[in-house]
Amino acid sequence: MYNRSVRPFLTTRSLAPENQESPIHFLTKPIISYEYFYLRNHFNYPTLKEENFFFSIGGEVTQPQTFHLYDLLQMPKRKVLMLLECAGNKRSKFEPKVYGEQWEEGAISQGVWEGVSLKDLFQYTGLKAQAKEIVFEGYDFGEDKSKGKYLSYKRSLPLSKALHEDTIIAYKYNDQPISLKHGAPFRLIVPHWYGMASVKWVKSMDVVSYSFQGPYQTEDYVYYPYEDSDIDAYPVTTINVNSIIKAPLNFSILKKGEHTIKGIAWTGMGNVRKVELSLDHGQTWMEAKIEQEIKSHYSWVSWTFLWEFHKPGEYTLLCRAIDSHNRAQPMEAFWNRKGYGYNRISEIKVKIEG
Amino acid sequence: MYNRSVRPFLTTRSLAPENQESPIHFLTKPIISYEYFYLRNHFNYPTLKEENFFFSIGGEVTQPQTFHLYDLLQMPKRKVLMLLECAGNKRSKFEPKVYGEQWEEGAISQGVWEGVSLKDLFQYTGLKAQAKEIVFEGYDFGEDKSKGKYLSYKRSLPLSKALHEDTIIAYKYNDQPISLKHGAPFRLIVPHWYGMASVKWVKSMDVVSYSFQGPYQTEDYVYYPYEDSDIDAYPVTTINVNSIIKAPLNFSILKKGEHTIKGIAWTGMGNVRKVELSLDHGQTWMEAKIEQEIKSHYSWVSWTFLWEFHKPGEYTLLCRAIDSHNRAQPMEAFWNRKGYGYNRISEIKVKIEG
Repeated sequence: MYNRSVRPFLTTRSLAPENQESPIHFLTKPIISYEYFYLRNHFNYPTLKEENFFFSIGGEVTQPQTFHLYDLLQMPKRKVLMLLECAGNKRSKFEPKVYGEQWEEGAISQGVWEGVSLKDLFQYTGLKAQAKEIVFEGYDFGEDKSKGKYLSYKRSLPLSKALHEDTIIAYKYNDQPISLKHGAPFRLIVPHWYGMASVKWVKSMDVVSYSFQGPYQTEDYVYYPYEDSDIDAYPVTTINVNSIIKAPLNFSILKKGEHTIKGIAWTGMGNVRKVELSLDHGQTWMEAKIEQEIKSHYSWVSWTFLWEFHKPGEYTLLCRAIDSHNRAQPMEAFWNRKGYGYNRISEIKVKIEG
Repeated sequence: MYNRSVRPFLTTRSLAPENQESPIHFLTKPIISYEYFYLRNHFNYPTLKEENFFFSIGGEVTQPQTFHLYDLLQMPKRKVLMLLECAGNKRSKFEPKVYGEQWEEGAISQGVWEGVSLKDLFQYTGLKAQAKEIVFEGYDFGEDKSKGKYLSYKRSLPLSKALHEDTIIAYKYNDQPISLKHGAPFRLIVPHWYGMASVKWVKSMDVVSYSFQGPYQTEDYVYYPYEDSDIDAYPVTTINVNSIIKAPLNFSILKKGEHTIKGIAWTGMGNVRKVELSLDHGQTWMEAKIEQEIKSHYSWVSWTFLWEFHKPGEYTLLCRAIDSHNRAQPMEAFWNRKGYGYNRISEIKVKIEG
C-alpha cells in the first residue's frame, strides 16, 4: 500500500482500438521495454489461437507453403535494433490542425527485433519472374470506424524493399517472444519505413504481379497536400529526418545557470549526421554532441548540449537533425490532410528565473 | 504474456516531483480509484514512519495536543464524495501560453473521503479568541526547483473555511486507508477550493492570529493578471465553474448519423444548474441532460446530449456549464501569468465523413 515508486506510463489516445503513446521524454535507456512501447492499432486485438502460429506464402511463387514458428526457428537468424515510428507521430502539432489521432511526440519506440530475413524465407518458396509486390495480411480485422467497413489489415511492399536483408519476419523482441499487443507470434519488420508497413500478427504473404490497392495504402497512409482535392497525393513510406527535445520539458521554469539540453534524433535514410540547436530563432546554429549508444543503422541517436542561461527571461530553443542524405528538418511542416510525417524543426520554450 | 486487456493509464507530466494526469476521458465510473486519481506534488514523496501517524495542533488553542490515527478513529466520522481539481488543470490551453506544468484536462478526480470534521477536532483543543487562520504543514519537503529553495509544503485556511463541517482531516479514501501518494495517513480535504488547499501528509496544524504568508499562497497559487507586474494579484481559492467533453475526442473523425456527446461539469459554488451545447459558435445553445449519479454537493455531474450529424463536414462543439450562482464558463479565458483556474467554454472539433 505504501508505494513510493515513481514511473511513467503509456499515454492513452484511444481504447477501442487501443492507441497509446510511449512516455518517450521520461525514458532514458536506448532499448524500450514492451510496457513502454507505443501501441497503434486499427482494430481490436485478435485472439491468439493455434492457427496463428502458422502463416502461408502463396501467389507468384514456385512452391506455395505454410510455415510454423518451429520452421522459422530452424532458419538463419537476423537480429536488428530498429525503431518504429507511427506515420502520425506529432500529428497534433500541425497548423492548421488535422483530424485523426492526436499523437504528440511519443508514437516512436525502439528495441531489438529478431527473426528471419524475407530474402532467406523466400528461398523456400521461390519467386516467379512476374512477382512485383508481396501483400502481407494480419490476423487483425473488424470495423474500421472512419470507413464504416469491415476489413482486415493488409499492406504490400515492393519486392526490392521486401527482399532487403533487414526486412524480417520477427518472432522475438528484446530476446523474448513478441507480446500479443505487438504482433505475436509473427510481425513483419520493415527498416526505414513508417510503422504502418510493419504488419502485426502476420497471417499470410501473397506474392502478386501487380500494384496492390488496399485502403491502408491508397486511402490512408497517403500524403494529401490539399484540403479539398486528392491531386498530387503520394504514399507514405520512408521515415522523415526528425528529432525531439526530451529535456527540459516544453514550457518549464528553470533557474539561471547551466542546463543540459537532451534529446534524440533519427532518420529513415542513412544516418543522422548532425544535430544543431539554435537560441536565436534559427539565425545561428550550434552543434550538439551525438552519442550513439548501440551501433545500428536503424536506431535513434541521443544528443546533448550544455547551455548556460545567464539572464532571466523566456527562451525559445530550436533543434534540427540533418541526415547523411542532407535532409534537414524544415522550418515549416509539410502540411497534409491526414497529418503524416510531421518533422518541422523541434521547438521548446523555457522560462529562466533569477 | 498474451494479454489482450486494454486500459488507460495516468499521463505523465513530470517524475520528480511526480505529476500525473487522470485519463479522465476514458473513465466511466463516478468514483475514481487510486490508480486513476491524478497526482500533483511539490516534492518527492515523504517516507512514511511511525511519527507520521501523529499530527499536532498548536498555536492559538487553549489546549495544544498531539493526535494519533487511533484517536481520530474514535471521533465522529464525516464521509463526503468530493472532487479535487488542481488549480493548474487545463493550463496548456491558455493563449498566450503560460509556463509551468502543461496540464490538459485530467488534473481532476473524485471519490469518497472519510475522516473527522475540523470543527469536531478543534473541540478537543479549543480555539482562542484571536485565532484567525490555521496553518497546515505536510511531511513533504525538499528543493522547490522553481524557487531554488528548500521548503516544506504549508498553507493556511481562514477559520471560517477550516470550520466548515465538510472540511475534514481524512484518513480513508473509497473506504480504504489513504495511499501514500495521496497523503497517507492524514490528508486535509477542503470542499470547493482547488486542490492545493487539501494538504497531504498533514504533520501539524498551527492556529495563528495573523494572515499567514507562505510561498504557496503568496507566490504560487495567486492569480497575476499581468505579464510584467504583480498588481491586482489575488489568491486562488474557489473552483471555477467548468466542464469537459469526454466523447467524442477532440479532432476525431466520425461517420454521419447519431452520436452521443458526453461529458462532466462541476463548480466550487453551489451546484451545476445547467449544461448547454452550441453547434453555431455560441449563437444558440441547447440544454444537455444532466445525470447526477450520486448525491453530493461536491461532485461533478455527468451530462449527455444526442446529436445527429446529417451532413459531412467539420463541426465545432462548444459546451458551457452554469452554476446555481449563475456563474457560466466564459467565451474568453481569464489569462493569468501562472496559469490557474482555466475555465473557458469547452470546445472540440470533429470531422463527419459521408
